[in-house]
Amino acid sequence: MAAHTDTAAESCHDHATHGYITAKDDYLKRLRRIEGQARGLQRMVEEEKYCIDILTQVSAMTKALQAVAMGLLEDHISHCVVDAAIAGGPEAEAKIKEATDAIARLVRS
Amino acid sequence: MAAHTDTAAESCHDHATHGYITAKDDYLKRLRRIEGQARGLQRMVEEEKYCIDILTQVSAMTKALQAVAMGLLEDHISHCVVDAAIAGGPEAEAKIKEATDAIARLVRS
Amino acid sequence: MAAHTDTAAESCHDHATHGYITAKDDYLKRLRRIEGQARGLQRMVEEEKYCIDILTQVSAMTKALQAVAMGLLEDHISHCVVDAAIAGGPEAEAKIKEATDAIARLVRS
Amino acid sequence: MAAHTDTAAESCHDHATHGYITAKDDYLKRLRRIEGQARGLQRMVEEEKYCIDILTQVSAMTKALQAVAMGLLEDHISHCVVDAAIAGGPEAEAKIKEATDAIARLVRS
Repeated sequence: MAAHTDTAAESCHDHATHGYITAKDDYLKRLRRIEGQARGLQRMVEEEKYCIDILTQVSAMTKALQAVAMGLLEDHISHCVVDAAIAGGPEAEAKIKEATDAIARLVRS
Repeated sequence: MAAHTDTAAESCHDHATHGYITAKDDYLKRLRRIEGQARGLQRMVEEEKYCIDILTQVSAMTKALQAVAMGLLEDHISHCVVDAAIAGGPEAEAKIKEATDAIARLVRS
Repeated sequence: MAAHTDTAAESCHDHATHGYITAKDDYLKRLRRIEGQARGLQRMVEEEKYCIDILTQVSAMTKALQAVAMGLLEDHISHCVVDAAIAGGPEAEAKIKEATDAIARLVRS
Repeated sequence: MAAHTDTAAESCHDHATHGYITAKDDYLKRLRRIEGQARGLQRMVEEEKYCIDILTQVSAMTKALQAVAMGLLEDHISHCVVDAAIAGGPEAEAKIKEATDAIARLVRS
């Protein structure tokens, strides 16, 4: 985390920023909708709705969350990973390992 | 799902209710925490945090959501499915099919 | 569903057997096809096919495997879990816990 | 990262090949073990083993398969995607899209 100066990591962060600027509002809108789904689930539990209907909503919410993750991952690979790759060196390999570890966590979660 | 009278579905609903009464507060607490995670993700995107850190949070949130689903499913099988099974008939088979369909959606989501 | 002797566990095993008899050939056919997919993947790696095409086959094979799991799970709930539930007692609860643990492993795998 | 001739796609294929050469035997060994797991499952069904034990084996096999997918994906990103990215142009974007689509299929499968 700490104190990068002029590494690929920094250019990564810059680009990630630029990547965000275009899509940030879209991500925020999707995350607000997901927050709404979490509130909707509370309401369903509160009103003791039918379990299967609640589970259907949990599946829909999980799908929405995974779609956000996929978008972020695509942005991340397009910017951070590719920039680190162009810069080359051990940083490049580290970025790719970091990204595939994140993917492995998504596949398992 | 409208107007059951004296079917296994009703006993299911009654039991589901009883099932909820014990654990309802626990589910609500977990869902509020998940709602908080959705807000935390918005803050991370807003502040343009590092992608991989956001993805780690998405994985944690997905896991929390799946744990809620597993709890609900266990309650549902213990009450609705088992009651329908004891009552027997086509209702029993329908309940089991409905539950395994919900599981299949969770496995895929 | 006659002639339980000792425990629900034993009747479970008997019924599971009966459950298998109807669908056993279907499961074996599907598992042989999955075995064939594993051999197909070896051939693709051997011939150095395009990564993405190999990954597509891995996804297809995973889906086929999950479908087998869903079928087995439905059979298991219909027979073992339900029989244990009808017999009642701590065995019933243990069976449900065991089944939901297996589901949790499938959701995560 | 030498000697691209025509397109990034071609260099991708070349590099993928090189990527394979180092790890090919390892992938083949893992896939043979997975094929063995598929045969083991057939034996378990044949001998009518306890459902839950079969499901545990299905989960283990799915995990092994996903681990192969993760390895292939890491190789693919390190070689094809990065090379296409260095070459730049619409090909680069297409490669990233193709990789994230494959990831999305893995997450859902």
